[in-house]
Amino acid sequence: MQLAGILHRPESEDTAILADHQVLIRLQTAIDDVAQVELAYADMYLWQEGAPMHHVAMQKGLATQANQYWTLPVELPTNRAIYAFKLTDQAGQTIGYGDEGFFDDTAANWAVAGRYFHLPYLHVSDAELPPAWVKHTVWYQIFPERFANGDQTNDPADVQPWGQGPVKRDSFYGGDLRGIIDHLNDIAALGVNGLYLCPIFTSPSNHKYDTIDHFEIDPHFGTKKDFQELVDQAHARGMKVMLDAVFNHFGDQSPQWQDVIKNGQQSRFADWFHIHDWPVGRDAKTGELNYETFATGAAMPKVNTQNPAVQQYLIDVTKYWIEQYNIDAWRFDVADEVDHGFWRKLCGALRAVKPDVYLLGEAWHSSQALVSNGQFDAVMNYPLTQPILALFKHELTLKDYVGKTNLQLMQYRQPNQQVMFNAIDTHDTARLLTVLNNNVDQVKAALTLLMLLPGTPCLYYGTEVGLAGGPDPDNRRCMPWQPADQNLDMRAFVTKLVTWRQSQADFLADSQLSWQITADVLRLTRKTAGQTVSGTFNLGQAAVTVSDSQIVLANGLKDSVLAENGFVLTVD
Amino acid sequence: MQLAGILHRPESEDTAILADHQVLIRLQTAIDDVAQVELAYADMYLWQEGAPMHHVAMQKGLATQANQYWTLPVELPTNRAIYAFKLTDQAGQTIGYGDEGFFDDTAANWAVAGRYFHLPYLHVSDAELPPAWVKHTVWYQIFPERFANGDQTNDPADVQPWGQGPVKRDSFYGGDLRGIIDHLNDIAALGVNGLYLCPIFTSPSNHKYDTIDHFEIDPHFGTKKDFQELVDQAHARGMKVMLDAVFNHFGDQSPQWQDVIKNGQQSRFADWFHIHDWPVGRDAKTGELNYETFATGAAMPKVNTQNPAVQQYLIDVTKYWIEQYNIDAWRFDVADEVDHGFWRKLCGALRAVKPDVYLLGEAWHSSQALVSNGQFDAVMNYPLTQPILALFKHELTLKDYVGKTNLQLMQYRQPNQQVMFNAIDTHDTARLLTVLNNNVDQVKAALTLLMLLPGTPCLYYGTEVGLAGGPDPDNRRCMPWQPADQNLDMRAFVTKLVTWRQSQADFLADSQLSWQITADVLRLTRKTAGQTVSGTFNLGQAAVTVSDSQIVLANGLKDSVLAENGFVLTVD
Repeated sequence: MQLAGILHRPESEDTAILADHQVLIRLQTAIDDVAQVELAYADMYLWQEGAPMHHVAMQKGLATQANQYWTLPVELPTNRAIYAFKLTDQAGQTIGYGDEGFFDDTAANWAVAGRYFHLPYLHVSDAELPPAWVKHTVWYQIFPERFANGDQTNDPADVQPWGQGPVKRDSFYGGDLRGIIDHLNDIAALGVNGLYLCPIFTSPSNHKYDTIDHFEIDPHFGTKKDFQELVDQAHARGMKVMLDAVFNHFGDQSPQWQDVIKNGQQSRFADWFHIHDWPVGRDAKTGELNYETFATGAAMPKVNTQNPAVQQYLIDVTKYWIEQYNIDAWRFDVADEVDHGFWRKLCGALRAVKPDVYLLGEAWHSSQALVSNGQFDAVMNYPLTQPILALFKHELTLKDYVGKTNLQLMQYRQPNQQVMFNAIDTHDTARLLTVLNNNVDQVKAALTLLMLLPGTPCLYYGTEVGLAGGPDPDNRRCMPWQPADQNLDMRAFVTKLVTWRQSQADFLADSQLSWQITADVLRLTRKTAGQTVSGTFNLGQAAVTVSDSQIVLANGLKDSVLAENGFVLTVD
Repeated sequence: MQLAGILHRPESEDTAILADHQVLIRLQTAIDDVAQVELAYADMYLWQEGAPMHHVAMQKGLATQANQYWTLPVELPTNRAIYAFKLTDQAGQTIGYGDEGFFDDTAANWAVAGRYFHLPYLHVSDAELPPAWVKHTVWYQIFPERFANGDQTNDPADVQPWGQGPVKRDSFYGGDLRGIIDHLNDIAALGVNGLYLCPIFTSPSNHKYDTIDHFEIDPHFGTKKDFQELVDQAHARGMKVMLDAVFNHFGDQSPQWQDVIKNGQQSRFADWFHIHDWPVGRDAKTGELNYETFATGAAMPKVNTQNPAVQQYLIDVTKYWIEQYNIDAWRFDVADEVDHGFWRKLCGALRAVKPDVYLLGEAWHSSQALVSNGQFDAVMNYPLTQPILALFKHELTLKDYVGKTNLQLMQYRQPNQQVMFNAIDTHDTARLLTVLNNNVDQVKAALTLLMLLPGTPCLYYGTEVGLAGGPDPDNRRCMPWQPADQNLDMRAFVTKLVTWRQSQADFLADSQLSWQITADVLRLTRKTAGQTVSGTFNLGQAAVTVSDSQIVLANGLKDSVLAENGFVLTVD
């Protein structure tokens, strides 16, 4: 047995609390190594008074490149447990594994409480279960300046004709909140039920990630009355609304930074940033900035989120939009570069005013440290979605794709996996269609795969009508509203896919995931006792015959033969 | 290479922040497998603008039964880093390892930021560094009812003659705060500089773990004036004072529980506990309690620490003794069974009023989930100390002892390792001398080993004078104050050992630990660039010759020959 690959971390992602008395226990072993794992568990006190030890076989779960995971949902007799693992290798040799490490599989060892791991007391509050509504959500991301111009009276002075390219970094096209309100029915018709709006607060830029006033709607986007109408109209259509906040840094045009520039060390905002020397600027000799920023530019000074005054200000901002406008969720930009202590305070304060608020952090990497422990429900799950692109671009083998995907899924507890924000493209990436070289079949396949994965999928505005675009700023083209400029077949496909996904939200949240690879065909299966859903993707050039099933959706399928880039979504 | 054994978890114990720009990176591999590990790291943004990637060889650290740890303290050029590991096996084969898993060691892979792990931004506040004074502390635990009777006017009615055995569960002997004050010079003379007092608040029992009034000193122990004098006198001797609080449960004689019994669901304390049915008591049919308790008895109802009113009450209690009496530390009983959300609130509130307060949780198992993340500085480190007993009782091989010890050390970040509460016996265990069958040589050896391990050691009152005692209540015998009843040789030994340990506190906190096993001889070495300290322990029956060194302390050593149970503490 490869003991080196065996790992269980108590009170972690390896012990996901699902409900009172319910916990999902997980164990890591080496891949293709252990034949069988049995979980032994009991309430320590009752067991010491004579109650029996329970023994249940664990289920073989997902595998990464090198490791196999074993899982078992357990209904505990009480909210306390000691537990240990009995592992059997291919040759039938056994060993025990618990809090002190490995032990010989002897009755004497199994009789010692110290050999076992401890779940000292299961408090459901410590599960930090995400809001129930999120797993029933398909998101739609809007970059407001480019979605629709509903009110020409609030346009910037230098507004460009709608849709005229090429899009430049500093172009304005006049998109606004009224434009979004006008098109809420179009959005709802896709089947999506969560709006994620990029920043809408006052800022000089078109993207507004350099906020000047967190308490005001940018005048080019509209008024607070417009925003109230947007939220109310969205809610009336069963749609949740998520706003985007940038707390890692402020824009250099913000009154706080301007005050620092003007008043130097005497500024009341002097401790709102990370300033090493005065006056702020570049060192005359080295040319280096004497204050911390986002990335390496001068324009986005990093905020000192350890400063209690700053903390209170940012908490007040986020509470304001919840309490006054009843928004449902916050997305936090560059969340990974802000300190965890601040996020614990902010997230706690927001859950106190709205217990079912969804709190999402931006990160581009695996982020166990940002999820739970009083912080976010989820992160932007690029590490899960980006391998989909690599798969369809034939940059990854099918096996490596599955290994990487499973590795990411194993980073988080199941309740968090269910609400991860699975955006395959955003305002920060090139568009899906462009990344996949305008191969519409691949786009449909990639979206189908996305919808089948654990987590809540997000569509970037325009994907449904075949909007293309390279990296920023080209990924922020104006939404084409003329039917002649829209791929209506794509829209019909997306609508059907999303509508089906919504109808299966509970099933897709709770069902087991498994993978089958046959040559160039990747099959993902979601399964419960009562139902099986599979997505079968042909990533090879040769056509592949698929067996009959109840077909929900297919592309490139004729007479049971799947063409290259074809896929079929089936239910059994 | 055994890929299954390779693991690094970003922003965890594998990345201990030591100071601004300083992080201790750690990697787990299989034992006896990988030949070499190189860390590649850079600031992502600067690297993308052309700054170089740094490459440094990692150091082979401690090993558990199955895994080898590799460590490297890194001084980062900025507070951001991406980093990945290049592993070389015995045959010279190499592989890369980062956030997406394993990758081929090609220039193309090393050029992709996504392959690397992320330390998005190093905030020193997220290190949650424990108070600096703790690592310079040797603790002395007092069970007040049995330490010294300084004031006979406050004795309980049924007080027993001091020292008369056998000790019963409900005996009273009259120990009190005045007794402790009277003997502060004796305690200080041992060289210890931290007092850990078992509970002193009003309670009907001798142990007082069933508190009735958290805001009052038990009248049999004295007055608040006495306590103030105790704290002031301890501080005047450079001694810190730690109190003990029981927040997992209250005594059933507490006014809160009595109110619940009296007023049932109408009690204002009805939601202060976990009550499933009314009236509280045992189900007539099943005989089961209809409320949650500590363990399985009826007398200690579990407190509902999710209730905001309870949270505020308990925070007020702990703040009160800090703010009014200037205590330095809190130890929390059964901390592991209380919810993490509550501990985050309480610990945050206490650090706000006293930033250098030491917060210690009781647990009997490895407790990564209780340390850091806004919670405790340390836990009671039984999993580290109990194997010492098993080692000297020959219940563990030397190799297994080292493997288990290293496994426990690897559970926590280095700054937390340095302040773990290493008590080898307490009011909850049989006494060291009795566990080791009155073998005084073994007791001296075990204490020496304890003092050499990372963490802050604690002496249980009486150990220094050879006090014996089996499990509770026998482990709570009266402190013998007559010189005739004291082992004065042991006292001299303990004084010398503690005094030496205090003189080496910084060295012992910061030096590298390694182990050497030669037949039945265990050698522990602590090493910095400038100094080496070793403890050599003969656990076999055959006498062993040791080489000359500068001897600090020894037992059973004659003419360079170490007898059975002998040890020598040397400095090079």
